[in-house]
Amino acid sequence: MAARAGVHRATVYRRWRDVGGLLTDLLEATGDDDWEPRDTGSLLGDLAALNHENQAALTARPSIAAALLTASFRSEEAARGVRRLWEDRYARCEVIVRRAVRRGELPPDTDARGLLIAATAPLYHQLVLLRMPADPGLPEQAARTAVLAAGAGAFTAGDD
Amino acid sequence: MAARAGVHRATVYRRWRDVGGLLTDLLEATGDDDWEPRDTGSLLGDLAALNHENQAALTARPSIAAALLTASFRSEEAARGVRRLWEDRYARCEVIVRRAVRRGELPPDTDARGLLIAATAPLYHQLVLLRMPADPGLPEQAARTAVLAAGAGAFTAGDD
Repeated sequence: MAARAGVHRATVYRRWRDVGGLLTDLLEATGDDDWEPRDTGSLLGDLAALNHENQAALTARPSIAAALLTASFRSEEAARGVRRLWEDRYARCEVIVRRAVRRGELPPDTDARGLLIAATAPLYHQLVLLRMPADPGLPEQAARTAVLAAGAGAFTAGDD
Repeated sequence: MAARAGVHRATVYRRWRDVGGLLTDLLEATGDDDWEPRDTGSLLGDLAALNHENQAALTARPSIAAALLTASFRSEEAARGVRRLWEDRYARCEVIVRRAVRRGELPPDTDARGLLIAATAPLYHQLVLLRMPADPGLPEQAARTAVLAAGAGAFTAGDD
């Protein structure tokens, strides 16, 4: 493929060192897109939609997301790239919390990142670390858990 | 080391195929222990203690837990072994929920596994997948989030 594209294989390896680095740059290039989390009109709906999207990405065959996570355990360069991708993804998702604050669903001092991690971590945990089969109910359930915890003040300082 | 122990290297590789398989069997052998989650007298205390223990294990230098998780992305045999270890660990942790039910902190029909995953996943997510530095407040915060969600009915069927 490199030959067909008119570049030498050595150039590819000099630039990227390993497949993890190449994959990461590729994803970053294509990831400079206009992806935004869906606006469903409610906090629960937005978080559930995000989890459904993540579950679909992780269980696709082949799954680029799963390949990238695996690469991040095999290559330092991929690990660094994946960190940047996570950061970009969670930063973009913070609009979910801002919208919920505007709607009056959440107090303004909500810890957006903490809420987003609580809502999304169980799905990654089950699929990527525990290697369980996809549970069709989990996207909604994890979203609902985070919303209920938020309603009980889990992501605001001061109370408790 | 194999030579010193009087076994041939070939025997080691025939039995375990790769370092992931060996590591897993080793941990399973030593894992047939009497580990139990700490009984602190409250659901929040038990979950926070569990998270503190997990955070310590993942941030130890060297960390056997982190090495094992990494191996599970490099070897199918390690991946299978790690699945068994997770299953064993979460099964042992269910006593945390049973104790809370006995104390009247949780209703009897609580989804123990769901609650345990909600309480523990954020910490693994931050340290293992997001590769963030350890946050000393996270063990308690993640435990508290799960307890608040449980109090709001997140882990019982029927309500909602």
